[in-house]
Amino acid sequence: MAFPRPKPTTVETLAMERANPPFNVRKLSIKMHGSEKALVLKEKFMAEIARHPAFKLSDIHDLSKDELRERTMEKFASMVYFVTNESLEVFTLRMQLIGIADPSFWTRFGVAYGLFLGALRSGATPNQLSYWIDRGVLGLNGVIGCFAMTELAHGSNVAGLETTATFDRETDEFIIHTPHLGATKWWIGGAASTATHAAVFAQMIVDGKQYGVKTFVTQLRDTKTFQLLPGVTIGDIGKKMGRDGIDNGYIQFTYVRVPRAHMLMKHTQVSRDGVVTEPPLAQLTYGALLGGRTSMVTDSSNSAKKALTIAVRYAAVRRQFAIGTNQLETQILDYPIHQRRLMPLVAQAIAIGFTGLKLTKMYEDMTQSLDTMDPSDLKETHATSAGLKAFCTWACLDTIDKCRQSCGGHGYSAYSNFPTMYADFAVQCTWEGDNTILSLQAGRSLVGAWGAAIKGKRLVSGVAYLNDRSILTAKSDSSLTLSDIKRAWNCVAANVIKKAAEEYVSHLKAGKSKEVAMEMCSQSRFIAAKVHTVGYIFTMFKEAVNEMEDSAETEVLRTVAKLYGLWQIEEQQGYFLKYGFFTAEQIDKVQTSVDALCAEIRVIAVPLVDAFALSDHILNSPLGRYDGSVYESYFSQVQAANPLPKEHPYFTRLIKPLLERQNVEMEDPEQVMGLDNELEEMEAERREATKGKEGKVRKEDY
Amino acid sequence: MAFPRPKPTTVETLAMERANPPFNVRKLSIKMHGSEKALVLKEKFMAEIARHPAFKLSDIHDLSKDELRERTMEKFASMVYFVTNESLEVFTLRMQLIGIADPSFWTRFGVAYGLFLGALRSGATPNQLSYWIDRGVLGLNGVIGCFAMTELAHGSNVAGLETTATFDRETDEFIIHTPHLGATKWWIGGAASTATHAAVFAQMIVDGKQYGVKTFVTQLRDTKTFQLLPGVTIGDIGKKMGRDGIDNGYIQFTYVRVPRAHMLMKHTQVSRDGVVTEPPLAQLTYGALLGGRTSMVTDSSNSAKKALTIAVRYAAVRRQFAIGTNQLETQILDYPIHQRRLMPLVAQAIAIGFTGLKLTKMYEDMTQSLDTMDPSDLKETHATSAGLKAFCTWACLDTIDKCRQSCGGHGYSAYSNFPTMYADFAVQCTWEGDNTILSLQAGRSLVGAWGAAIKGKRLVSGVAYLNDRSILTAKSDSSLTLSDIKRAWNCVAANVIKKAAEEYVSHLKAGKSKEVAMEMCSQSRFIAAKVHTVGYIFTMFKEAVNEMEDSAETEVLRTVAKLYGLWQIEEQQGYFLKYGFFTAEQIDKVQTSVDALCAEIRVIAVPLVDAFALSDHILNSPLGRYDGSVYESYFSQVQAANPLPKEHPYFTRLIKPLLERQNVEMEDPEQVMGLDNELEEMEAERREATKGKEGKVRKEDY
Repeated sequence: MAFPRPKPTTVETLAMERANPPFNVRKLSIKMHGSEKALVLKEKFMAEIARHPAFKLSDIHDLSKDELRERTMEKFASMVYFVTNESLEVFTLRMQLIGIADPSFWTRFGVAYGLFLGALRSGATPNQLSYWIDRGVLGLNGVIGCFAMTELAHGSNVAGLETTATFDRETDEFIIHTPHLGATKWWIGGAASTATHAAVFAQMIVDGKQYGVKTFVTQLRDTKTFQLLPGVTIGDIGKKMGRDGIDNGYIQFTYVRVPRAHMLMKHTQVSRDGVVTEPPLAQLTYGALLGGRTSMVTDSSNSAKKALTIAVRYAAVRRQFAIGTNQLETQILDYPIHQRRLMPLVAQAIAIGFTGLKLTKMYEDMTQSLDTMDPSDLKETHATSAGLKAFCTWACLDTIDKCRQSCGGHGYSAYSNFPTMYADFAVQCTWEGDNTILSLQAGRSLVGAWGAAIKGKRLVSGVAYLNDRSILTAKSDSSLTLSDIKRAWNCVAANVIKKAAEEYVSHLKAGKSKEVAMEMCSQSRFIAAKVHTVGYIFTMFKEAVNEMEDSAETEVLRTVAKLYGLWQIEEQQGYFLKYGFFTAEQIDKVQTSVDALCAEIRVIAVPLVDAFALSDHILNSPLGRYDGSVYESYFSQVQAANPLPKEHPYFTRLIKPLLERQNVEMEDPEQVMGLDNELEEMEAERREATKGKEGKVRKEDY
Repeated sequence: MAFPRPKPTTVETLAMERANPPFNVRKLSIKMHGSEKALVLKEKFMAEIARHPAFKLSDIHDLSKDELRERTMEKFASMVYFVTNESLEVFTLRMQLIGIADPSFWTRFGVAYGLFLGALRSGATPNQLSYWIDRGVLGLNGVIGCFAMTELAHGSNVAGLETTATFDRETDEFIIHTPHLGATKWWIGGAASTATHAAVFAQMIVDGKQYGVKTFVTQLRDTKTFQLLPGVTIGDIGKKMGRDGIDNGYIQFTYVRVPRAHMLMKHTQVSRDGVVTEPPLAQLTYGALLGGRTSMVTDSSNSAKKALTIAVRYAAVRRQFAIGTNQLETQILDYPIHQRRLMPLVAQAIAIGFTGLKLTKMYEDMTQSLDTMDPSDLKETHATSAGLKAFCTWACLDTIDKCRQSCGGHGYSAYSNFPTMYADFAVQCTWEGDNTILSLQAGRSLVGAWGAAIKGKRLVSGVAYLNDRSILTAKSDSSLTLSDIKRAWNCVAANVIKKAAEEYVSHLKAGKSKEVAMEMCSQSRFIAAKVHTVGYIFTMFKEAVNEMEDSAETEVLRTVAKLYGLWQIEEQQGYFLKYGFFTAEQIDKVQTSVDALCAEIRVIAVPLVDAFALSDHILNSPLGRYDGSVYESYFSQVQAANPLPKEHPYFTRLIKPLLERQNVEMEDPEQVMGLDNELEEMEAERREATKGKEGKVRKEDY
């Protein structure tokens, strides 16, 4: 007897799921990618890396940290080519795709290309910038930079950094110094084994006076020999939760001298005589932060879509338990609870995807008109993006783990790719601002917006609903349409923002400082940010759908939007009941509707995730194979990754002595136990007390 | 200048946190451990393993899978000594502690000792059992067993397993066979390189008739040479999310013959003539499952306490941002939002700990009276334990990740130990029943309990609140006392159970089968299980506190219980509003109370986690050092784990060519780009469209 497979096979089952979808998969895919060209480019990038040896993915789970580091560096060469030959837009799309395939590389490259270069762009004078460009900073030929901001004892509080840069008038140099262990530069990506230079953030001291944190380009290594320069101590900070392809390091400077001209002087200048000229206003770096957050929103959607493609395809082919007298076991995706586990997350990933597209557009427009914008508009967008970064990255991390759990035991295998995805993604909730702290920033801005609204100021679109005070007491028209859902979110968001603002004011009235009053209403600020952000995502999605012409694909997205909005209402139902937008009966109806929408989307689940357009190479998970051959692919990969050793590595040393040992101790336990009297007494008591229980079974067994 | 540290140092800060606690740390610790003896034993176990070379923990993050496997096996020898010399109770406490220190070993040992031996105990006849004990199964000398239940295509549905065991009358043997790939035994802990024998679960076929799944002890390897026996194919299933110290493997049987006597025949017997005698009723294995679940509830509490000890101590010594004109930055634990992040989780871990103690006691009593118990009582406890397993393991996994995030970037370092803890713990949400499926089982039982209650049956204690129908319309007395909170949970749990039961009945009335009707009310069953379980944990905690004499320690626990109950009400406020137990104003009061309780417990947070009594060795995290020397310890560990390589591993091959390369491509981009016309056209369009944006800055820079 060979190994017959049950019928229909997993491959046949997945083909059946794709038969006659009620919409055109490619058309839907184009909508989700923003344009046909973006999709075509993505397919091109996917094809390129699938064939590039450095981008091999199937073996990454079994590579050591050192092997991952080296593999990651191999990708550099293939990318510097594109960075110097593609338009920024195309290259951005390329990196966006690479970011889903290999987050480690994305970061390692991004440190040199994005962060270091970004520091130069935002901080250098035109002459300084061209100096560094001449040195090769753009093509990474001559200079590979890293971004030395965070320290062992300071992360969020950049103004509190303790590395010093003391001006030496005699030599026209700055002396970069790490005064104590806590001031060691820490987490510096690229420092351990890639970078030749660093943008060092340090407290500038001129004539004994401290001027705050400025940036100093400091050479770390000789570019010919890669030897560390005198006074520079660098170490590897080693294993991380994920992204081990990045060589994060620590740097200690011991009186390292850099020319005065290596201080970036676009804003603050220091003259040959040590005269410090400071800008009239602290420069706003909203733009730079916005770019990072926008890309993290998009990445949250893409990473969630990757996990969901795997989980949905697996759920479609995995069969477990037969219902009634069926011969064939049921596809787990047919269980209502499994639909409940995955369909809302699919809707959320799509909603965040459309939010990412809108945000990218907004960011592009903003970059263009940065100088002419109303600063308060910019501030509002900045705050909204803080909340989006926080709640979108949380949503994605949660999605990855829920997808893992939905695949049962196989989700725990490294080869499912969920473990690596989770570990790699987890840092997104922490870097570029801890999510909780960012949420509070968003909440602070909402409290401010409420204050402005009650003073009659017309607010920008994201918070414009606060201008209409009647929204506070709105009620559902029971229709649960997209409009009804939007009003629901606006109503509830306005109420929780109002609550936070009123708490803040009451603390002020009680004599607290603004700072302390803000801290005291933290929880309410957090809630305000959470509710506003979900409402914002829903609104972005709804707007995107409203802008589309009617079509089968638009209809699908409308259903998905409805599921997202109603499911989130269910998740946060307390606020909707508390502020009276929905009655208890209507909330029951929301639950029933979510059940029904999950069942409705389940029918098209496989073509829907197909429209995410992620190749098998990117998914890198046999469980999510496009063709459905999950068990065969999984088995092959496990075999390939785990060849049988010629000899058992430790049988003779460890197992054989166990198997062959005589249990002499058993003959005279007293002699060998050596517990003190009290413990023996206790055990005797316990033995007595447990007569006739498990212990007895064991005694009798001898 | 040396490296002066800021004052007060982290060590001084932590000492200050411990000055004059308003309770006795050891007395509180004893309460949380159930008895002084349990605490003393735990301290003894911790001291033993801290000095045992095989239990070295500080280097585990940098060990390869193969090194971890070998290290894990080294621990076996030290444990088989205790397994044969300690009472079951003492040994259980020992393994409970080991489980927190080294989950991989706990599992690898537990497979041989717990699962394989457990299969024999529950399935073998007395003669069979003594045969295997004579062969050395108890002391692991002669036989090391594994538990071959799950298959590649079957996990939850044990009855659907596809391995066959066909009786051969001629030779008086069973033929064990894997008919196809999906029937490959998969995930079998110990199979890859430890086990000599397996308890194989297979469909028994006698004379062409299939009798369902029975257990067959099958030898896998020669005990002298460790060579695989004929027909046995075993492979390693390789890397996992965590617990890489366990050698999970796959097994394929190709017509492997075992003597008929190796079938475990306590329940079903097969005679020499092939006559099958089946037991009158399917045997209930509630007892065995209960034991596993009880230990997972306890482990959830202990693992959460481990993560929280690290996070709370770190939050007490980490300073970030100065408030107002303070010179010294603020301890992050002093921020209300950070108290909100950690204090409720501390309360939850303690609540689950007391639930674990109660459950262990209940399980011990039950084991004693298993034969005389009312089967429906047993069933209820079984269902409650299913819900507890699900929601306690979820709560713990969530706690570990929240603790990681609360430590910012350093939480992402492997040396914080959070990444390993998360990866190791994650499987608890999946094994011994996927949490979602277990929740539905609990929900099914609650639906049944409701049905019984309305028929007037007096229910057992866990669900006895359903007997009092007036609870459905109860209202808060606004006191927010422990009694008020308990009534709140009973009220809401009764309502959500009633809703699930009514949905179920309505589907039955609409003509659905019981099975389908149960599936259709899945979401409501899930909610019923969730609300009931949290209420159950709160009730267990409250009862434990009520049983204590008044003391400063009891007072602390009462405050902790209040925080747990109110925080969970806040988390699930929708139900309390929906069923009218609390008004909107009262819910606001709940939020204010939670804020205040967090602040109250923050004051004692460090001594409180000290009472968890976890040694630095067990914590294995410099961030959680008892003495507060977090940065020094962290730095030392990072240095020790990452010695500088003598030579850069890939500078010459990969970095040097990059640094020295000439960007010839830049001189004639057209020649090298090779994009097709459409893409070039698109890029041209984009370039045009983005004039004056980022792209422009870049062009100008050349």
